[in-house]
Amino acid sequence: MYIEFMKDCIFAVVGGDLRQARLANALAVSGYTVYGLFFDLDVYVSDKIIRSENIREALEKSNVIVLPLPASLDDKTVNSMLSTREIPLDDCLRYAKPGSILVGGMLSKEFRERAEERGITTEDYAKREEFAVLNAVPTAEGAVAIAMAERAATIRGSKCLVTGYGKVGKRLAALLCAMGANVSVAARKPKDLAEIEANGMSAMHISGLSGGAGDFEVLFNTVPAMIFGEDILRALRRDCLVLDLASKPGGVDFEMAKRLGIHTIWALSLPGKVAPITAGDIMRDTILNILRERRSMQ
Amino acid sequence: MYIEFMKDCIFAVVGGDLRQARLANALAVSGYTVYGLFFDLDVYVSDKIIRSENIREALEKSNVIVLPLPASLDDKTVNSMLSTREIPLDDCLRYAKPGSILVGGMLSKEFRERAEERGITTEDYAKREEFAVLNAVPTAEGAVAIAMAERAATIRGSKCLVTGYGKVGKRLAALLCAMGANVSVAARKPKDLAEIEANGMSAMHISGLSGGAGDFEVLFNTVPAMIFGEDILRALRRDCLVLDLASKPGGVDFEMAKRLGIHTIWALSLPGKVAPITAGDIMRDTILNILRERRSMQ
Amino acid sequence: MYIEFMKDCIFAVVGGDLRQARLANALAVSGYTVYGLFFDLDVYVSDKIIRSENIREALEKSNVIVLPLPASLDDKTVNSMLSTREIPLDDCLRYAKPGSILVGGMLSKEFRERAEERGITTEDYAKREEFAVLNAVPTAEGAVAIAMAERAATIRGSKCLVTGYGKVGKRLAALLCAMGANVSVAARKPKDLAEIEANGMSAMHISGLSGGAGDFEVLFNTVPAMIFGEDILRALRRDCLVLDLASKPGGVDFEMAKRLGIHTIWALSLPGKVAPITAGDIMRDTILNILRERRSMQ
Amino acid sequence: MYIEFMKDCIFAVVGGDLRQARLANALAVSGYTVYGLFFDLDVYVSDKIIRSENIREALEKSNVIVLPLPASLDDKTVNSMLSTREIPLDDCLRYAKPGSILVGGMLSKEFRERAEERGITTEDYAKREEFAVLNAVPTAEGAVAIAMAERAATIRGSKCLVTGYGKVGKRLAALLCAMGANVSVAARKPKDLAEIEANGMSAMHISGLSGGAGDFEVLFNTVPAMIFGEDILRALRRDCLVLDLASKPGGVDFEMAKRLGIHTIWALSLPGKVAPITAGDIMRDTILNILRERRSMQ
Repeated sequence: MYIEFMKDCIFAVVGGDLRQARLANALAVSGYTVYGLFFDLDVYVSDKIIRSENIREALEKSNVIVLPLPASLDDKTVNSMLSTREIPLDDCLRYAKPGSILVGGMLSKEFRERAEERGITTEDYAKREEFAVLNAVPTAEGAVAIAMAERAATIRGSKCLVTGYGKVGKRLAALLCAMGANVSVAARKPKDLAEIEANGMSAMHISGLSGGAGDFEVLFNTVPAMIFGEDILRALRRDCLVLDLASKPGGVDFEMAKRLGIHTIWALSLPGKVAPITAGDIMRDTILNILRERRSMQ
Repeated sequence: MYIEFMKDCIFAVVGGDLRQARLANALAVSGYTVYGLFFDLDVYVSDKIIRSENIREALEKSNVIVLPLPASLDDKTVNSMLSTREIPLDDCLRYAKPGSILVGGMLSKEFRERAEERGITTEDYAKREEFAVLNAVPTAEGAVAIAMAERAATIRGSKCLVTGYGKVGKRLAALLCAMGANVSVAARKPKDLAEIEANGMSAMHISGLSGGAGDFEVLFNTVPAMIFGEDILRALRRDCLVLDLASKPGGVDFEMAKRLGIHTIWALSLPGKVAPITAGDIMRDTILNILRERRSMQ
Repeated sequence: MYIEFMKDCIFAVVGGDLRQARLANALAVSGYTVYGLFFDLDVYVSDKIIRSENIREALEKSNVIVLPLPASLDDKTVNSMLSTREIPLDDCLRYAKPGSILVGGMLSKEFRERAEERGITTEDYAKREEFAVLNAVPTAEGAVAIAMAERAATIRGSKCLVTGYGKVGKRLAALLCAMGANVSVAARKPKDLAEIEANGMSAMHISGLSGGAGDFEVLFNTVPAMIFGEDILRALRRDCLVLDLASKPGGVDFEMAKRLGIHTIWALSLPGKVAPITAGDIMRDTILNILRERRSMQ
Repeated sequence: MYIEFMKDCIFAVVGGDLRQARLANALAVSGYTVYGLFFDLDVYVSDKIIRSENIREALEKSNVIVLPLPASLDDKTVNSMLSTREIPLDDCLRYAKPGSILVGGMLSKEFRERAEERGITTEDYAKREEFAVLNAVPTAEGAVAIAMAERAATIRGSKCLVTGYGKVGKRLAALLCAMGANVSVAARKPKDLAEIEANGMSAMHISGLSGGAGDFEVLFNTVPAMIFGEDILRALRRDCLVLDLASKPGGVDFEMAKRLGIHTIWALSLPGKVAPITAGDIMRDTILNILRERRSMQ
């Protein structure tokens, strides 16, 4: 899609992991001026990025500050896995020019308030809907990659059950279908059940799982609620692989699964792990959307 | 999908067109007792349906009354295209047993109130989300069938633009893609644009249409708002086929299109026209969903 | 695909139907000098084509002569449906420059010999494999369009049987699958049966048809041999639609089908009928392949 | 697909790796009597298999002897990776009943002759076309799994080039396409180039590779000939991943690739490595095809 170039935007990309480095890269490749702070591990960083260790200088020259996902692990310092240095979170506010925009992932309410007080607008890209839609792609591919690695049969022809038909469930079910798996999806809303059937997959009401789960070879849970308790786990084939993609507390009674000898994997944060380049591109696209929308509102 | 059989339901299917006859059929094939009223044109009606011209008798033996879509064209008589008789809409209320459920399409507020006064519960299946989801399938196929019939080139390889990414837009874009067309979709929400790209189609912001529309060979509008006004129509190729699937008032300035010599077709109510059997099945599934939900709430 | 431009080729496109006019068009659009002979019906002919009624003059200026498909219906005159004039087939040889290349569809052995005697190389594009591969696309779409028009249900969810897994069978089965039909394919070779299953469709040995055919709603035959005789026809549902795509003598006992009340359509030459533009493009691509290959052999 | 049960077949499955154990399993699950010889590593072997260490006894009770793929690594002993014992290849002939059928993978000409002399019919399932067609599925999935594991971006949206459009090339290109990659295929025959385009992928003549290869992110070679020599390797992006799926001698100048810093993986025998269960099922299906054909010829 064509995305308008916003020539007055100058970015400071601070800390983070491989995705953040890729995001800096992707912005630079798109033509933007980018200051990259605290990337000591430099393998993936393009020459087009202006590397800096001086946050004050860099923020004074920028008007868009990009914090990683999550922005901080301790509410005090910037999450910066590719650096040996500690960067106080508040340095980002102290040196930012008033009028700057600060975007980051999972920003705390307190931090956002402190920023706004200083005239810095904030936005959490991890809360944007398109961010979730786009990240469902690497999540689905990552889940398929795990299933491929852990099992001794092809995806094609495998009997797969996906529970939940939200963004990840939808994308994963479609991918499995495209690869020739035999896909059932368990959901609750009549609208979702209708869409599942219209997409050529078998729909199953989530309340009927214990009766119908015994036939599946791979099970992908996307619902963040305890769905796979003892009764359903007991109904599974012993050689069924269970992949839980739901964020904490997850949807599987792992203790019970272990006792029953069912191979269970809790796979979290797949985009950053399996496809940091793509994850960085998604962060860039979401951030540019945010900036463009603010601009068109002015 | 497995759907529980509700053995105490006895249906009176009243009036309607081919879809309604098919719906009666589909219910009977599913094992239900079905009274079919006012199907004089009998080609498609199964032996399993109990035919009747006596609405009083039939309603006294039934507890679910099914009116067609739309239930009435004049707010007075039942829409009954397959009969030469006029059936007063109020007969359905007069003879219905209190405690019956009456389902129909596009029921007026007044009619629903009169029904409730008599202890008859009503529900409009045309307002259910799964009804719209499922009907998007015959709508999309019907649109493709028209494009095939009107054009001298294959769908595969054709440059198609779909405007709108709601239920119909989504289904249609996916179908065109699956058939090998070169598909762009114009939408507005970042979430939709992201999903379009993630699905392997080109996303276009609806505000950029006049600049980007000149390349397309077929254009399918699904947005019920005047999108294709003079400026965009002027930007189109003269041999572009424009199919408007949006309900009234439609999304195309037909007058202007005609003046510019652009072949435009306003295709409404496709499911009933191109696939009455499927449309009848969809009505049955939606009605059974309604009944099952009511049951599980008791 | 990038196709090298052969700047010394000058085309004379003679007679034919809409496809031939489109072929002339497509060559001109690709940048070639094209003489178009005997297109009285001029709706579709581009300004870039040099129109001519004087075959002598046109052939003297050309070095590639393109006859239609089939080149002749009577072995005497050029098949020229868009003209009121009769063009003797031999005029094409008489006025052609020695060293010219003449391409046409279904050229008779005698005609080719007479041409070669005069130093004119001939080639039959209708015998090229890529011609058949590419034409399978409009054939498959045409078959689907007929099934859509003749039936009252959607393709999605329909139980379809395709007999034969050659070029057309393969393309048609894949298209139906992509559209969400429930597709079975009957074939004979273990290799084909394996490929059908690997593509996610049900494979059926063609010898088991009479036992397994009773469940299908649409049947597409692509095998040019009497497959659907009395026993199999008797096994079909009465409302099954039978589409025979096989060239003469076809694969269905039409007499018996009629007696049994089974709706049967013998659909021949679909590309020219349903998608003459695409058919013309395919002719162009095949002819350019022929010319390029000759060139690279020199 | 329905496959007739041949009740008089009694199998002796000898030696081999996981696939062979799975094959024994799959035959037993299909209802056959199966003697399993020399599976000391017993994890995957079903109770339905009659385990034996006495080849004489087992072969006397059987009439179909199944050797692994390859049957032997040294032309003297059976390839038996799951056993600590050495089984002389000739024991299989010595103890087999005359009239038995012996099937195996990559049987030597000498061995087959010795078998025929003793009245034992032999067939090499690895030479069957359906065997190659079906094995293309796990090969393609295995290649995708490697690409997923080695790269930091999703398959969706990646620019992939597949060289060769034989059984593996076709299946792999289709899988990548279904997963949303941007797929080009390089081939030579006009028929193949036409089919590639008709399938919605970009076709490229294999002679134009050095000019067009610079854009790709992943490259899958399936042609067993030196295609990727210095000139083409130099044209590649430095971060391009090259996967060679071609059997020896392979299609890539690995030495040069290493010198240029291009990450290259030579992935052989994927079905047995990534999907031994599926590979065993494919062996069973092919062997049953062989037996059924012999039967129908009698």
